[in-house]
Amino acid sequence: MKAKFLSKMGQRTGVPPISWLMQTALTRPKLISLAAGFTDNSTLPVELSRKLLNDILRAPKVGQPALQYGVTAGTENLRQLTATHLQKLDGGHDRAHSPERVIITGGSQQLLYMTLEALCDEGDIVLVEDPTYFVFLSILQSRGIKARGVKLERDGIDLVHLEKILEQLKKSGELRRVKALYLVTYFQNPTGATTSLAKKSAALKLLKKYERAAGHPLYLLEDAAYRELRFDHGDDIPTALTLPGAERVIYTGTYSKPYAPGARLGFGILPEPIFTTVQRIKGNHDFGSANLLQQLLAGALASGLYDQHVAKVRKNYAKKAAVMKRALAEHFPASVEIWESGGGLYFWARLPKGISAGVKSKVFQAALKADVLYVPGELCYADDSSRKKPDNEMRISFGSASEENIRKGIARLGAVLRKFL
Amino acid sequence: MKAKFLSKMGQRTGVPPISWLMQTALTRPKLISLAAGFTDNSTLPVELSRKLLNDILRAPKVGQPALQYGVTAGTENLRQLTATHLQKLDGGHDRAHSPERVIITGGSQQLLYMTLEALCDEGDIVLVEDPTYFVFLSILQSRGIKARGVKLERDGIDLVHLEKILEQLKKSGELRRVKALYLVTYFQNPTGATTSLAKKSAALKLLKKYERAAGHPLYLLEDAAYRELRFDHGDDIPTALTLPGAERVIYTGTYSKPYAPGARLGFGILPEPIFTTVQRIKGNHDFGSANLLQQLLAGALASGLYDQHVAKVRKNYAKKAAVMKRALAEHFPASVEIWESGGGLYFWARLPKGISAGVKSKVFQAALKADVLYVPGELCYADDSSRKKPDNEMRISFGSASEENIRKGIARLGAVLRKFL
Repeated sequence: MKAKFLSKMGQRTGVPPISWLMQTALTRPKLISLAAGFTDNSTLPVELSRKLLNDILRAPKVGQPALQYGVTAGTENLRQLTATHLQKLDGGHDRAHSPERVIITGGSQQLLYMTLEALCDEGDIVLVEDPTYFVFLSILQSRGIKARGVKLERDGIDLVHLEKILEQLKKSGELRRVKALYLVTYFQNPTGATTSLAKKSAALKLLKKYERAAGHPLYLLEDAAYRELRFDHGDDIPTALTLPGAERVIYTGTYSKPYAPGARLGFGILPEPIFTTVQRIKGNHDFGSANLLQQLLAGALASGLYDQHVAKVRKNYAKKAAVMKRALAEHFPASVEIWESGGGLYFWARLPKGISAGVKSKVFQAALKADVLYVPGELCYADDSSRKKPDNEMRISFGSASEENIRKGIARLGAVLRKFL
Repeated sequence: MKAKFLSKMGQRTGVPPISWLMQTALTRPKLISLAAGFTDNSTLPVELSRKLLNDILRAPKVGQPALQYGVTAGTENLRQLTATHLQKLDGGHDRAHSPERVIITGGSQQLLYMTLEALCDEGDIVLVEDPTYFVFLSILQSRGIKARGVKLERDGIDLVHLEKILEQLKKSGELRRVKALYLVTYFQNPTGATTSLAKKSAALKLLKKYERAAGHPLYLLEDAAYRELRFDHGDDIPTALTLPGAERVIYTGTYSKPYAPGARLGFGILPEPIFTTVQRIKGNHDFGSANLLQQLLAGALASGLYDQHVAKVRKNYAKKAAVMKRALAEHFPASVEIWESGGGLYFWARLPKGISAGVKSKVFQAALKADVLYVPGELCYADDSSRKKPDNEMRISFGSASEENIRKGIARLGAVLRKFL
């Protein structure tokens, strides 16, 4: 497959690790997958979407523009509603939430892709959480962008480690290749960790401090994909957009997780000159995401039915997360460290040091044989020669499995682990 | 805007020329736009889409998967239906139309973008029709890919010119940088020209002949975006996929033009290793286009309602093209050469040599003042230092304007031209 006539990028772009997991799942019909990051089928807004689409398509006057081309950055109403929605989430803060800075994309994934296109050349460096969202790592790898992992704690990255890395990069002369720090700030994929506001603020300040040495802006790329899936009754944490220094914040969010992945819309709030550059790049990608879906989301948001729906979704995940928590307490050996999450779709499990849960490990093979699948944590670590990749972790999702399958799946996985621990 | 910390691509990506035209249109409320490549609002399938979406979303069993994530290459049913649809268009030919080679994308634009990502590095060369689709040129420019223009005749490219260019590139040692020949083969944007099967075949053979000197495959990238908008009662011309040598053909089509731009789906039929590479790249872009829209198109195709709809659309454009033809005969000076088209959305007008219709020309300014807008043909020519860019041409669209506005718009434009000719 490494045909030399392909572009360098074409040759570099590898098989997504997760597709191999999915393939594996397909070959074992009785398998319970705790691997997929899918949302729960049962809470998808089928009837709500039908109602809203009927409202749009009942009259030609509304229906025709929804089926026509739109504008590259997104339809005016959805950009406005998105800005207002985020202002509300951020407690009325509106400084950095202008609709003019909103761009609507094909999932937040497309926003991440285009942002990296706008900012990074081959050989540039992006700092990431260690571990982080593996498809983001795939983009970096495909585009020849280097990643440096910053240790992740339960409340966000280790700031001392971040400063150490920045200092090292300054000394080695590589700081001028650093473009951004990528943080998945709410109920992170894969660990479920949420970054505190204090850490966001400190990270922004640290980046600012090193800008002079870098010779250019150092952006905080804040990925809030799971933000609206909070279910722990804690307060929502404001985004870095609300902080001093917000002109260096690139914020991405999505309607896929809280509303529907099949409607495939996400968004970004971008500072200049990133906004204009990404907008132009999107002009070349697709000159605008599907208008019909934008009108669907606009209808949901404007009517307040979006908020009602998200409340239902959260309740459902709260219940499923509780089921998983109980099952873990019952079936997992006590020596396994569990990171529970107050939102999102994932728990994170860390086996005692020396016990591998990696793709080629005995644990993973035994789990497969017992018909239960998880995401080996090692897939979520960047290629970064400054540390060994941990391989003793698992991402376990309660997103798409039924309550019964969560119980069964965790019981199976627990039995496997008890054999090895 | 050329901030040096942006990627090379970020710095290169310019304002799309058409966005400037659109802005201009907005500032003159009485302006008649014969510039936009929009489809006709009045024929958009509003009621049909409502019916089909109700069918999908009435039952959770069908509705839930439509609102869930799908598979990167597209849903199985739409890939199958797309393959069958193309087989039918190609007179039952099925050699190269396997569903396994179909990838569903966010418009055919995304397919073009990802194909160039897979094939071309900065400095590579793509041969294009002279003139060609200007957003394709924007992608090339943005990615630092060079274009060489091949003279376009009413039945496709000038083969003698193609051979001459290939020979020149061979002699200059640049042939190893050539990756593909891009042809918009049906009712081309911007000229309306359609490539004959004989020319497709000859072009494929010529590319093959130069592969040894290039040291790698030379692909024919066939863009069939306007194929289904034929209205001249002529026979559809088979694609290059039906020809010997089809293993070098990358075919792209769209559901935007025949069905609805607001549903924003296109597709490609790709040979290996392009298919696998583009699929992986799409995994990084968005891991699959919106499932709900894929099910909408699958429903339209499977029920036969798609074909019924397209027949109606063609009838409408036939009528509007006839209105434009009559108006041109009545109002345009005889010295203007008109390329009428048997399909698509565009006519092409060539003023006598020496009379500029370019963006900064007196003709364009006078047209604007008379409240009528066209696309200056010069925007559709690649930057290619081997020839001067012609500036005496206009793309005139009958796509979105009403019959009355077509008549009025052409009358206004004719009056302007009579002043200058």
